[in-house]
Amino acid sequence: MTERIELTPDLPAEDAIREIATRAKIAARPLATATRATKDQSLLQIADALEAASAEIIEANARDLERGRAKGTSAGLLDRLALDESRIHGIAEALRQVAALPDPVGEIVRGSTLANGLRLKQLRVPMGVVGMIYEARPNVTVDAAGLALKSGNAVILRGGSAAAASNEVIVRVIGEALATQGLPKDLVQSIDPWGREGAVALMHARGLVDVLVPRGGAGLIQTVITESTVPTIETGTGNVHVYVDAAADLEKALNIVVNAKTHRLGVCNAAENLLVHSAVAGEFVPRVAAALAEHKVRLHTDGRFASLAEGSGAEISAATEEDWDTEYLDLDISCAIVDSLDEAIEHIRRHTSGHTEAIVTEHLGTSERFVAEVDAAAVMVNASTRFTDGGEFGLGAELGISTQKLHARGPMGLAELTTTKWVVNGDGHIRS
Amino acid sequence: MTERIELTPDLPAEDAIREIATRAKIAARPLATATRATKDQSLLQIADALEAASAEIIEANARDLERGRAKGTSAGLLDRLALDESRIHGIAEALRQVAALPDPVGEIVRGSTLANGLRLKQLRVPMGVVGMIYEARPNVTVDAAGLALKSGNAVILRGGSAAAASNEVIVRVIGEALATQGLPKDLVQSIDPWGREGAVALMHARGLVDVLVPRGGAGLIQTVITESTVPTIETGTGNVHVYVDAAADLEKALNIVVNAKTHRLGVCNAAENLLVHSAVAGEFVPRVAAALAEHKVRLHTDGRFASLAEGSGAEISAATEEDWDTEYLDLDISCAIVDSLDEAIEHIRRHTSGHTEAIVTEHLGTSERFVAEVDAAAVMVNASTRFTDGGEFGLGAELGISTQKLHARGPMGLAELTTTKWVVNGDGHIRS
Repeated sequence: MTERIELTPDLPAEDAIREIATRAKIAARPLATATRATKDQSLLQIADALEAASAEIIEANARDLERGRAKGTSAGLLDRLALDESRIHGIAEALRQVAALPDPVGEIVRGSTLANGLRLKQLRVPMGVVGMIYEARPNVTVDAAGLALKSGNAVILRGGSAAAASNEVIVRVIGEALATQGLPKDLVQSIDPWGREGAVALMHARGLVDVLVPRGGAGLIQTVITESTVPTIETGTGNVHVYVDAAADLEKALNIVVNAKTHRLGVCNAAENLLVHSAVAGEFVPRVAAALAEHKVRLHTDGRFASLAEGSGAEISAATEEDWDTEYLDLDISCAIVDSLDEAIEHIRRHTSGHTEAIVTEHLGTSERFVAEVDAAAVMVNASTRFTDGGEFGLGAELGISTQKLHARGPMGLAELTTTKWVVNGDGHIRS
Repeated sequence: MTERIELTPDLPAEDAIREIATRAKIAARPLATATRATKDQSLLQIADALEAASAEIIEANARDLERGRAKGTSAGLLDRLALDESRIHGIAEALRQVAALPDPVGEIVRGSTLANGLRLKQLRVPMGVVGMIYEARPNVTVDAAGLALKSGNAVILRGGSAAAASNEVIVRVIGEALATQGLPKDLVQSIDPWGREGAVALMHARGLVDVLVPRGGAGLIQTVITESTVPTIETGTGNVHVYVDAAADLEKALNIVVNAKTHRLGVCNAAENLLVHSAVAGEFVPRVAAALAEHKVRLHTDGRFASLAEGSGAEISAATEEDWDTEYLDLDISCAIVDSLDEAIEHIRRHTSGHTEAIVTEHLGTSERFVAEVDAAAVMVNASTRFTDGGEFGLGAELGISTQKLHARGPMGLAELTTTKWVVNGDGHIRS
């Protein structure tokens, strides 16, 4: 038995992350076969403990906010970072919802008895160790820990410097709650003390970390995707389109466009682009432009759209080539007129980030072609793009929304944190 | 409409691969919604065309073999490379078997009507463009093309210089067969003319290639895993163990060990390690050592195993620390005595490559613990490790055996070449 290394910030990042990941791997072993009751009880215990520690969490969070303000952090980011009693209650409630979800572990995905009598089954099992790199979102610390534990995994968290004080308290409270349940603290560990080098070491901990999920701005995600040798899942960027078809119910279209654009600005499932079929543009564009103007949305449009939107009160500028590829996450939308479904699909193909795309139409064949031909994690027919969300889809909390095609696509819930194991039972079978 | 660039070997690799991947992406679009009948028909057509072209393929293959012999390629590799009438017939038959399998595309993975009336379904859809990097295995060219087409994908093949002449003919024959079915040749393209630079460009074609599967030696796989920014699936390395428990039926154990080790040497599901419980070692080790000696298997053993195996006629050497981690792919096996199930599991944990692990036991609880606690793509109870195989599992041909946990684990068949798409149908639903 080797002595337990002390994990101080002085320890070189690579050694520290290797030790942390090894501990996580060992801690995850008994959790892989833990009963659902044990896992749920630990989530409920963590939820209670976080609420009980809310004063301490809010105090630490105030220090993060102060540091953020001093550094000139944007109001939007500060809002994401901020915690109060009600938000902590919300975070705890999310854990209780995860506890109420079925356990994905142990599910028999497929199985059969082969011609030679071998009994074959494919079982759902935990990944082992999940790594999470994110920014300034203390709620993600809890969501990620809750989803990982429920799916039988250990988690290693890199929550970023902006939320370091908040995350430190939250991770400690989670560890104490786990200990009361006889579970090791090593199941939920933070590598924030090792800063950026720690994050890089985590990206290179192949063999020790089974999957790495980056969540945050496009820069963070691209860095992780490019640097990591651990298998990663790309999340997040949403250059989302709403296409209003010639056969659209314009009342529905108006509501959907306004909701998709303005319901919440800084989220990946918000609409950033509006395409309108020319057959209904004369009637629809003035109405939608006026409605968006009421919400102070700035329109970046092609020429035809601009001339129809004139007099709506909206702030209009000519769309540049860049606009079509921009995820504004703000009170902006790019708008174009198209002359056919094909043109709409082609426009989306050129500019989609593969997150969510929506069509508004009453025509069955048109909706079916759109669904079949648009290549995205989620395709909406007559519904707001805001519905692409783990909670809305009934998956419970989500770890992020995958925009790649490998392993997970769309909102990532519990099942997406599992893998499978083939189990083969024979009676002395050999291959001939 | 831009002019079609001519793809000559002079074209810089990066430009060539970008163009090829773009063509693949465009070609894959109509295939994503092609009927099963269309896809099956094209596979059957390819099978017939390959058999019809067997003389030409064998002639090209002879040139590859000659080049290989001149370069001193090993007999094992030359055997993998070699094609004759019967092997081409086997390859064609594998295509016909894939044609006979159900179509994974369009399967509804899950679905429900949400509380708000939204109709949600998760559909199985093709990946789009699959990249494949492999070595000296012309049969993989056909298997990969067949699996990709049936699952609605385009495939880009890098088959390596050793099989370049064979692959060139095979890819051309496949393209001609596709053309007779009205399908574009761009569905199956080779990047061999751009050599190693082409392979590197493929690894960096993120956004154009949806998944990259390396298949071959450990060096090739590690290069792809480390270099690639395209999502990859690690395949192949099998440091496979057979554990003969105290409660084993020793007759079954003997058959399983000999089959797992000697049935085929150069394959990833061959046993490379034997662990025997000390309670049965006195009876079992002399028998298994003698049986392995008959097959000329060299034993690399710990001290206890060695003294029990003395006089068996086997060639015995002391196992080094390296032996426990070596995938011999040859007439060698490392052997150890363990005193408990825990010790066996711990030994496997330290040395497993996550491919296949087997236990021989008649004790229910012991088998259950082994299955639960050993972390591998496949766990065998009283069966040879040689059964970890797409064909044996009933998946049809396989693209490789994934030893990582993301997306696919174990043999990769048709379903593993698909992703999913969430489709949400509403009636003007907005989020409140």
